[in-house]
Amino acid sequence: MTSLLYWIAPLAVLAALACAGTFFVLMLRADPGNQAMQRIGRLVREGAMSYLSQQYRVMLVSFLGLAAVFAVLAWGLGLQNDWLPITFLAGGLFSALAGYVGMQTATLASPRTAQAARTSLAAALTIAFRSGAVMGLVVVGLGLANVLFWFWLIDRVTPPSADGARLVMITTSLLTFSVGASLQALFARVGGGIYTKAADVGADLVGKVETGIPEDDLRNPAVIADNVGDNVGDVAGMGADLFESYCGSILAAAALGAAAFHASPDVQRAAVLAPMIIAGCGVLLSILGIFMVRSGDEAGQAGLLSALGRGTLLAAIGLVATAGLVLHGLGLPGAWGLWGALAVGVATGMIVGRSTEYATSARYRPTLRIAERATGGPATAIIAGVGVGMLSTAIPVLTVGTAVLLAFGLPSGFDMTAAGAGLYGIALAAVGMLATLGITLACDAYGPIADNAGGNVEMSGLGPEARARTDALDALGNTTAATGKGFAIGSAALTALALVASYVEVIRIELIERGRQWLELGQGRDIPVAEASLGDFMLYFDVNLLAPQVLIGVLLGAMTAFVFTGLTVQAVGKAAAAMVDEVRRQFRETPEILAGTTPPDYARCVTISTIGAQREMIAPAVIGILAPILTGLVLGVAGVIGLLIGGLSSGFALAIFLSNAGGAWDNAKKHIEAGHFGGKNSAAWRAAVIGDTVGDPFKDTAGPSLNILIKLMSIVAIMTAGITLAWSLF
Amino acid sequence: MTSLLYWIAPLAVLAALACAGTFFVLMLRADPGNQAMQRIGRLVREGAMSYLSQQYRVMLVSFLGLAAVFAVLAWGLGLQNDWLPITFLAGGLFSALAGYVGMQTATLASPRTAQAARTSLAAALTIAFRSGAVMGLVVVGLGLANVLFWFWLIDRVTPPSADGARLVMITTSLLTFSVGASLQALFARVGGGIYTKAADVGADLVGKVETGIPEDDLRNPAVIADNVGDNVGDVAGMGADLFESYCGSILAAAALGAAAFHASPDVQRAAVLAPMIIAGCGVLLSILGIFMVRSGDEAGQAGLLSALGRGTLLAAIGLVATAGLVLHGLGLPGAWGLWGALAVGVATGMIVGRSTEYATSARYRPTLRIAERATGGPATAIIAGVGVGMLSTAIPVLTVGTAVLLAFGLPSGFDMTAAGAGLYGIALAAVGMLATLGITLACDAYGPIADNAGGNVEMSGLGPEARARTDALDALGNTTAATGKGFAIGSAALTALALVASYVEVIRIELIERGRQWLELGQGRDIPVAEASLGDFMLYFDVNLLAPQVLIGVLLGAMTAFVFTGLTVQAVGKAAAAMVDEVRRQFRETPEILAGTTPPDYARCVTISTIGAQREMIAPAVIGILAPILTGLVLGVAGVIGLLIGGLSSGFALAIFLSNAGGAWDNAKKHIEAGHFGGKNSAAWRAAVIGDTVGDPFKDTAGPSLNILIKLMSIVAIMTAGITLAWSLF
Repeated sequence: MTSLLYWIAPLAVLAALACAGTFFVLMLRADPGNQAMQRIGRLVREGAMSYLSQQYRVMLVSFLGLAAVFAVLAWGLGLQNDWLPITFLAGGLFSALAGYVGMQTATLASPRTAQAARTSLAAALTIAFRSGAVMGLVVVGLGLANVLFWFWLIDRVTPPSADGARLVMITTSLLTFSVGASLQALFARVGGGIYTKAADVGADLVGKVETGIPEDDLRNPAVIADNVGDNVGDVAGMGADLFESYCGSILAAAALGAAAFHASPDVQRAAVLAPMIIAGCGVLLSILGIFMVRSGDEAGQAGLLSALGRGTLLAAIGLVATAGLVLHGLGLPGAWGLWGALAVGVATGMIVGRSTEYATSARYRPTLRIAERATGGPATAIIAGVGVGMLSTAIPVLTVGTAVLLAFGLPSGFDMTAAGAGLYGIALAAVGMLATLGITLACDAYGPIADNAGGNVEMSGLGPEARARTDALDALGNTTAATGKGFAIGSAALTALALVASYVEVIRIELIERGRQWLELGQGRDIPVAEASLGDFMLYFDVNLLAPQVLIGVLLGAMTAFVFTGLTVQAVGKAAAAMVDEVRRQFRETPEILAGTTPPDYARCVTISTIGAQREMIAPAVIGILAPILTGLVLGVAGVIGLLIGGLSSGFALAIFLSNAGGAWDNAKKHIEAGHFGGKNSAAWRAAVIGDTVGDPFKDTAGPSLNILIKLMSIVAIMTAGITLAWSLF
Repeated sequence: MTSLLYWIAPLAVLAALACAGTFFVLMLRADPGNQAMQRIGRLVREGAMSYLSQQYRVMLVSFLGLAAVFAVLAWGLGLQNDWLPITFLAGGLFSALAGYVGMQTATLASPRTAQAARTSLAAALTIAFRSGAVMGLVVVGLGLANVLFWFWLIDRVTPPSADGARLVMITTSLLTFSVGASLQALFARVGGGIYTKAADVGADLVGKVETGIPEDDLRNPAVIADNVGDNVGDVAGMGADLFESYCGSILAAAALGAAAFHASPDVQRAAVLAPMIIAGCGVLLSILGIFMVRSGDEAGQAGLLSALGRGTLLAAIGLVATAGLVLHGLGLPGAWGLWGALAVGVATGMIVGRSTEYATSARYRPTLRIAERATGGPATAIIAGVGVGMLSTAIPVLTVGTAVLLAFGLPSGFDMTAAGAGLYGIALAAVGMLATLGITLACDAYGPIADNAGGNVEMSGLGPEARARTDALDALGNTTAATGKGFAIGSAALTALALVASYVEVIRIELIERGRQWLELGQGRDIPVAEASLGDFMLYFDVNLLAPQVLIGVLLGAMTAFVFTGLTVQAVGKAAAAMVDEVRRQFRETPEILAGTTPPDYARCVTISTIGAQREMIAPAVIGILAPILTGLVLGVAGVIGLLIGGLSSGFALAIFLSNAGGAWDNAKKHIEAGHFGGKNSAAWRAAVIGDTVGDPFKDTAGPSLNILIKLMSIVAIMTAGITLAWSLF
């Protein structure tokens, strides 16, 4: 029975990739629409590809340079595990590949979705959603494939030994696989976030506000960049973000499982494989769920939403059930507790997602209050939104806090010092939350496809019927985007937590590799490094919360989150200003554009957003990478852990605040546009538009980028643990 | 020689109160101006007093109720030290008294400052500044008197013993003296912050924006409430905030000194008295500094600023010098290191204050960039301000982080496990920062007096010469307010840190009072409770950063700061909406008001602001008080420490962000009003006005209230340590 379990994960990889391929081919065969539609689709696709090729060029240089540094560190100085340079490149490569496939699919799918919308809602939904599913399945397929391949390879080439430290060593070296994925996520999420909002704000400020032409008007030079931005930010950025969380959670669970059960080799191997097998089950269940998403034309928007919800919910329920079977089938001790931890993770994802929807949907009080306050002008609308965003941190933090307590407590019998099983439980909660990523990401990536399809319908001047259908799809996309954002933040927090916990395991292996046998705890208490508990390490490195290094680390972590946010928000401001100048220039120098007789120079706007994104992402990226390295060099291991936890707590709360405030302003504006509080062009609407513009960099740049920051800092800390141990000041 | 040192502090108290009395009488003797000026002054004073009497009524009920609860806890259940009910009332009473005197002085001084401004700038500065000094000296005089009196009394009535635990017990019971001061600060700072901005936003939105009458126009029904608000927020609120920091830092230093040197009774007593003696020196130096502040009429604004700066700087330099003498004179071991820690605190206060000025003054790039971005409309102005505010967290956090490292490291020889001397060093740094509060608070309280004097000149229709002079005073007041805000935040952070550190000493005494002799550290290692080190306590309570209770505590702490901010920001929104309704109602029902023939009903607006402030402060207050109690009951000591540090790190960064973003928007607006980027009534100006209104609750309500939150949570934790130990779940 158990040997059968081992085949689930590889099988799931093949199924995911096969399914993605099928959906892709089916989508390609669909009618791409008339000439105008195809032309717009081509422009957006070319823009997206020009962005990707520019970004991948920058990435290639950075990756090769860093790989060289890692090679010196690992093979020359022995400060790193030997696999780092290779797994680093692999992680980046596969994440980039997933992003490329997702973008290709999304940009090819939008005109076809638009065309399908001319005949029926159900047909349009099917194309858009299955194209989103390509992204979802490619991400989980490639992610899981990588995890499995590198584990298999390193396990094979490492000399066998009955020692429990062997698997701990293998799984901790695997963690560095996330380094590449993390850096690629940084490029995709931060760069993409800057790109999309620079284009959006620039297009709106000159187009809608100054010139008074409608949104998605082909006369606006930035309109193509704006449509490209939806793909760049919400498809490639979100995909890379979750690719990293997905791999990170599985790898952290493997490392913590190896550590928790290092005393008995068989159980240890089962604990390492369990997260991979559960992830495999999640992939298969996601595929099942994806096939269940259909909608009759008569069902309308509510029907669409329930169709998506049904698929996601069933995949989640199925996961909880099968995970129970897997954990018991593998014969893990305390399987019930571990199963409870995993179920807690699944529930956490749903609650955090729903709480985001509550905070940002115009069906609930918070967003309605912002719309009402907009009647008092922009200032009161913005004050109300800031209040809503800050208050909305309560439910997600309380949920994640409770999840940590339960996920740690259930496997350890609420013995809070039994860190081994407890930390493994937290990592399993993260795995549970992310296992059905195939379908949750499909719901997410579907949004920008529907959005772009709507833009295509508008720009090609198709009839109002098609527009009404794409509007229904798009409105739904906004709801799934809100829950998706909450989900991405929640999963990033849990994954980062699991990564921080595995940092200590990396420290253990680094000490062993340096030939250190004993941990001296003072008063003659020497404990073998291989046997030392988490508490022993905490004592040895003085990681108590009142030690100055830890205190300073926590303060620095909070500061890093704020400074990073400030930099990304400013980056959008700067890049948008460049876009505004360019659009104004084109209107001024070529008046025929506004008359509609000469097409504007779309490519220049695409280039400006691309270059702006690449340039402006440097500072936040450098901060995220240098903070853990410098803190480690000055304050040592204790300071680094302080930094990570301080950054995690502040970054998590900040990310929710930014995402929800931005989402609530957006929907308050839409609520007013739907005819409330004076409707479109009223004073309240103008106030709400200002709120929405303020919220753009909040919700689509800074907020999601914080997900990357908290994971990236943990990964960089893991990667530079050897350097911290060798050279730190304290 | 040393016995002489003991007289410094009582002498300083007498000198401070005598000086304050003299300044008050001299101010009263000054010419109160013509009938119109006196009438306006009377209206503002009556409004202020009606606010105070309403607030003190609410306070009286709350304090008596809580004192009864404390009496049951302390005298009935034995869960508290016996002095709590009495010291609690004393702390609240004296803080309230200081606030009352400050408000009386400020409201009496404004018309006299306005009158003096009709003849000369130097005369106006002297009246305004010396009246501000009344507040500064009363706060330090009453604060230090209380500390001395209760220490003397409890020391006398406690049976003598050669045991080092005796003084530890006395000093930790004294910490609860801060409870009353802390609760009063909550009422004054949060309530005052809501009051002032509800009045300000309400007056501006209807008066300036809708009706188009100028600021400080007597036809505006909310104008008196607005002027009252300046006193309520910036005099009473700031005073109560710093009264608490001042007492808290001295008491925490005493408790940590008693703990650090408990092995040798003589040294221990010296370490307990040192902070009080240094505070006494600070008071005397402040008085000297206050007498040095003068300005010739020809000097202008730059001359004024340098006059204030000179006084403050000399007091600080004098403090560092005399503190060195005191520490050496008392024969404290490692006096050089302790002196270094104190000097670090003095420098930290200055750097944090200056960094606030850099972030918010139109003489520097950040604020200028906001002004420039305002040309792109309100959205870009607000995005730029958010960016500036977030980035401005870097210098204060890095400064405080470095200060913690040095203040801990210098006395302990950078042995980061030698917590005793290290934590005493951190507390001494806080004392150093706050010792010259007499003059720094004088510079602060001077601001609203000058502001109100300007309002008085405007409303009484005095000549342009007087207006120009009060404008110069007011502009200076804005600069000192900016540095003052930074100083208040920085000192709150250091004080809170010292309070958190003394929390462990309170736990020690609670354990001893429960008859606990030994701390069992596992593996047969039992350590006498009285001898246990900080590290032992951290180990015993499992306060390592990866223990789930601590992790959850840190997450909850960050969330508390965000939710508290959301509540206070929303409170202003709600109270301002009520004010807007009232002003509109008066204009609508009595059209003669706008014609200037019938005076509006000022009292109703004052009442609305007062009631709004009292009602809206309940929710944030409850959060601040319940968070540590509930966390303690569920997660125990480890969770509480996590909560405090999480709240401290996020709250500190948030407070700086909010204060600096608000200050920068304010000054960007003023910069545009001075004729840049189109000047007054241009599009950029309108955008900047919206930014300024958004910033109002940021900088004057939420930001300063966070100072209270982080200190209050520590104090509540200290007060409920017995309950946490007795009843916590984990």
